[in-house]
Amino acid sequence: MPNAFAFGELIMAKFYGIGTGPGDPSLVTIKAVETLKKIDILVTPEAKEGGKSLALSIVQDYIPENVEIVQRHFPMNFNDAEKEVAWQNIAEEIIKIVKSGKNVGFVTLGDPMIYSTYVYILERLQDEIEVETIPGISSFSNIASSQNRPLVMDREALVVLPCTADEAHIDFTLKHYNCIVLMKVYKNFKEIIDKLTAFGLAEHAVLVSNSSLNEETVYTDIRNVTKEQISYFSTILVNKTL
Amino acid sequence: MPNAFAFGELIMAKFYGIGTGPGDPSLVTIKAVETLKKIDILVTPEAKEGGKSLALSIVQDYIPENVEIVQRHFPMNFNDAEKEVAWQNIAEEIIKIVKSGKNVGFVTLGDPMIYSTYVYILERLQDEIEVETIPGISSFSNIASSQNRPLVMDREALVVLPCTADEAHIDFTLKHYNCIVLMKVYKNFKEIIDKLTAFGLAEHAVLVSNSSLNEETVYTDIRNVTKEQISYFSTILVNKTL
Repeated sequence: MPNAFAFGELIMAKFYGIGTGPGDPSLVTIKAVETLKKIDILVTPEAKEGGKSLALSIVQDYIPENVEIVQRHFPMNFNDAEKEVAWQNIAEEIIKIVKSGKNVGFVTLGDPMIYSTYVYILERLQDEIEVETIPGISSFSNIASSQNRPLVMDREALVVLPCTADEAHIDFTLKHYNCIVLMKVYKNFKEIIDKLTAFGLAEHAVLVSNSSLNEETVYTDIRNVTKEQISYFSTILVNKTL
Repeated sequence: MPNAFAFGELIMAKFYGIGTGPGDPSLVTIKAVETLKKIDILVTPEAKEGGKSLALSIVQDYIPENVEIVQRHFPMNFNDAEKEVAWQNIAEEIIKIVKSGKNVGFVTLGDPMIYSTYVYILERLQDEIEVETIPGISSFSNIASSQNRPLVMDREALVVLPCTADEAHIDFTLKHYNCIVLMKVYKNFKEIIDKLTAFGLAEHAVLVSNSSLNEETVYTDIRNVTKEQISYFSTILVNKTL
């Protein structure tokens, strides 16, 4: 019997978007674990067709046995048309299941509202079915704590910036702000390291690859790190006040 | 027997800084709950002498019975000298306890590395004893998820800014960035609302007071909200792209 039907009474089924945090299963919230107990079907994103979803592996031990797991391919390339079709198809599938009375969950890495493709599913569901999103620990938050390194204090601002932004935008932020998180550093890694060095920020930076995963590596001197040493899941924290 | 002594063998005791998230006890992480089971003594901050710590009330149900709770006064005023003395005294007390072989925990609202006075304790401990910090869900992350409202996507930057910053700094951020979290909005609340309205940002903003607490209130039209209606724990999300 689907979870949404309780005591023979029809309760509207729901869609739950669940943030898994950065990778360590103990970094999910109690609420995420409780939510996984409410669902009938879990949809998990796979970057590669037939590949294993990292988000799924994080919550694996919290998923009750009776939950059906449905893996769906999320293209992670720059072909917008292909991605739109994939998102639309998954959204339509989810709407159909929820309208049939079953609770659907969807797991997403880190925090669902910070640079997550989850949002592209969410915006296709919101007008059709009830949606509840459960926040997650972002990778930068975990890096700061595990390094005992304040992200931002007092009257300072914190800027979280993807290194896929325009170079002028990156330069502007590095110049005007003291506390900065650089996300998506993988693609233009060498350029970013060179830039931080040129701005005199190398000694105020720490780089963490695979935060909270078994393969976690911390680089306190970013100057000699090469792209080959790090993974796609790499983040740099800069704090000029430290 | 203190938790740090296992199987008759001396293991160095530790200090644990634990982020509790914004208020709902289910928004703490599994790791925070597991950490509370490792400690012998929990130090909790109180804003008012004799008052009740919100951070403590959040984790209350996860604290094993044998843990000793020590409430300590944290002055939340602008008297820097008074605060320095309070932090120094608490830090010295914690160092003494940890060196005696007992694990000490300290709970702090939201995320310990984002505008948290926890950092002033941390920096006084780091060279003396082993410190482990457990991240928490920040209020802005929870507001975004509970409102199904993306904080930041794609190539945009996210700026988290306290409204205690210089006015020029606030204006600069509102002008140059699309995705903004305004923290500490309480003190100059009217000025902030007037400024957002003048910048044409009122319709791109949402205000949440007491996020995830029983008294949570959401204001989707910020223009008519007065300071009397909101609590000290209020945050405004701005996203020009929505």
